[in-house]
Amino acid sequence: MASSHATSPLARPLPELSTVAGVRLSAVAAGIRYKGRTDLMLAEFAPGTVAAGVYTKNACPGAPIVWCRQALQTPQARLLIVNAGNANVFTGQAGVKACEDCADAASALFECSTQDIFLASTGVIGEQLPQERIITALPDAKSKLSEDHWEEAARAIMTTDTFPKAARRDTSIHGTPVRIQGIAKGSGMIAPDMATMLAYVATDADLPQDVLQSLLAAGTAKSFNAITVDSDTSTSDMVMLFATKQAKNKPVTSVQDPALHDFVQALNDVLLELALLVVRDGEGATKQIQIDVTGAQSDLSAHRVALSIANSPLVKTAIAGEDANWGRVVMAVGKSGEPADRDTLSVAVGGTWIAKNGGVIENYDETPVVAHMKGQDITIHVDLGLGQGVGRVWTCDLTHGYIDINGSYRS
Amino acid sequence: MASSHATSPLARPLPELSTVAGVRLSAVAAGIRYKGRTDLMLAEFAPGTVAAGVYTKNACPGAPIVWCRQALQTPQARLLIVNAGNANVFTGQAGVKACEDCADAASALFECSTQDIFLASTGVIGEQLPQERIITALPDAKSKLSEDHWEEAARAIMTTDTFPKAARRDTSIHGTPVRIQGIAKGSGMIAPDMATMLAYVATDADLPQDVLQSLLAAGTAKSFNAITVDSDTSTSDMVMLFATKQAKNKPVTSVQDPALHDFVQALNDVLLELALLVVRDGEGATKQIQIDVTGAQSDLSAHRVALSIANSPLVKTAIAGEDANWGRVVMAVGKSGEPADRDTLSVAVGGTWIAKNGGVIENYDETPVVAHMKGQDITIHVDLGLGQGVGRVWTCDLTHGYIDINGSYRS
Repeated sequence: MASSHATSPLARPLPELSTVAGVRLSAVAAGIRYKGRTDLMLAEFAPGTVAAGVYTKNACPGAPIVWCRQALQTPQARLLIVNAGNANVFTGQAGVKACEDCADAASALFECSTQDIFLASTGVIGEQLPQERIITALPDAKSKLSEDHWEEAARAIMTTDTFPKAARRDTSIHGTPVRIQGIAKGSGMIAPDMATMLAYVATDADLPQDVLQSLLAAGTAKSFNAITVDSDTSTSDMVMLFATKQAKNKPVTSVQDPALHDFVQALNDVLLELALLVVRDGEGATKQIQIDVTGAQSDLSAHRVALSIANSPLVKTAIAGEDANWGRVVMAVGKSGEPADRDTLSVAVGGTWIAKNGGVIENYDETPVVAHMKGQDITIHVDLGLGQGVGRVWTCDLTHGYIDINGSYRS
Repeated sequence: MASSHATSPLARPLPELSTVAGVRLSAVAAGIRYKGRTDLMLAEFAPGTVAAGVYTKNACPGAPIVWCRQALQTPQARLLIVNAGNANVFTGQAGVKACEDCADAASALFECSTQDIFLASTGVIGEQLPQERIITALPDAKSKLSEDHWEEAARAIMTTDTFPKAARRDTSIHGTPVRIQGIAKGSGMIAPDMATMLAYVATDADLPQDVLQSLLAAGTAKSFNAITVDSDTSTSDMVMLFATKQAKNKPVTSVQDPALHDFVQALNDVLLELALLVVRDGEGATKQIQIDVTGAQSDLSAHRVALSIANSPLVKTAIAGEDANWGRVVMAVGKSGEPADRDTLSVAVGGTWIAKNGGVIENYDETPVVAHMKGQDITIHVDLGLGQGVGRVWTCDLTHGYIDINGSYRS
């Protein structure tokens, strides 16, 4: 059940990918659910690699999420194993055992601790993971490991994705060249039985695990945690960052170290680029939408108002219809539950102010807004006129394509 | 821009309507936006009538909502004036003046206090209400007042509704016959520029205003506040209950009075029947969905979990596709933010348990579930296995019809 849908009109070509010293990858066809495509990716990290991870807040997480949270109790990472086609979610004790079996087999094959192995599964919920197929495929996957197989890895983890997703930045720490490169999958934040969001980023930088975890958490807040396709939070979402330490940069001990300035910028760029690729492959998406909220009582309040707009089916269908229906934006602000005052509210679309301080502006000329709405990249700006809080989120429009994809996924 | 969409497949015929002593109604074509149909309803209540009201919690309410909240400061009600085609929302000071102008004109025409006049508007947001058209039409509306015009009133307030909505119950208080009859409009909770939800219920019962308000608030919690079409809360939602006191029942002074038992049941029936009619005219709806949550830590928690399921686009599209995709139900439980434990969670569809205590039941036979999903009335039951909290909400499926209606409303 790989995607049979046309490539998203918002698709981006893969960037020029390189290698990350200390990372080797492979992709094989384990036959978990799909026919005629790869569905198992393996990444091997050099000894000394440390990992950081951010996992779904869904209260009913999949067994692999529970496994990874436990594995992250120690910073070392040696292997990452990801299958597509089955999410190993709501599979009870058998799902836990499937994780253990895979880790045991990989541990024996690679002579490493199961504690250093990270596992992920994406696909249908509530069906038993056929772990023996993964275990059987592992030796083949090991034999194919290569520093050059990033694109193959990006393709092997796709489910309803219509294009593979990757991003890369070259930067430096203390003058030492450092690379950050990652892949992602997801066609929604979201859908637990098909479009689960996964992202894996690696760097050759030498950074302590606590610094890595802090940087990932901060970067995720402004990227993956600021996108939504349909408000449905997956049971399997994860973003992980691996540092192989091969770059041999001078030690960094704190996230406040000025030597990290360029690295942080580059990392945030990679995370945002990957997150936006997920939005641009949002199920049925024809437009990318950026929503800025300013003038809120706090940044958190601005973020919540922006998400309320981004998750409103009425806002999203209006944009699909190329209608700058700002009344629906006002409604979404008002329903957010956050402080808002109708009489200080202003709304702009595509940089043109439509309403200011609670009413339509005098002699409002719709022409530039109509032209903006015909484009692929839509911007909405709401100023609440209450304080200094700002927030920015991204989403896509809601179209017939979404209904097509989700009304018939399992049949 | 009245609805040009086919009548909902879930439409119900109007029930046999009667009169409510002390209530006269009329409907006229004021030409506010639509052509060739009535768009202004007027209801006149006998002297002594008291009103109760429940209004939208949206932080950016329309001017008529602000007006009604103020008018409800005194219990008396003599007039209700409702127009369709323009919501008088986000219209600034001019919108406030439009309310005042309408009330002033009606006050002069009917020789009553403006404080006893309730106003409502439903339709497009952000456009100035042409109040002179309402004022011009008022004398004609007055001349047409009749106890028999309930259906005409129900039709005059429709916007994207595909069928008129009304409900009636005959009951008694202290042995005195009492009637409850009401009308509603709405094709979503929701959409601020077209599908605003309005409901007006009248009774000839003699009840104090505080009792009336308590009964309405309690009844609304289990009816109108337990339905959702698309999670978008309107800026104009209101439910009002008028008691004309013409029934001459023996006095009732407290909501706890046992003499109210039958009345409360009948009122709740009317409110729920009207609320379900709104769900059954949900934009694009082809199935009505009832969601029961049991075993929650509290009733409030159960209600929130049920709403999280009811508002999940993935659950709603799956049901549109007649797919009993219970994995998406689990996801929606988990994302609700409420206490839930994957390993005590059970899910039933159409009365058949699919999963119990965190996993699919052994030898699960999909046959009765598949048959249930082909029907128009779908039931989902989630037991959280944590406590005694219960909740029930209703919604409809999410179909291509919703995209059609909302992607092109203003164009």
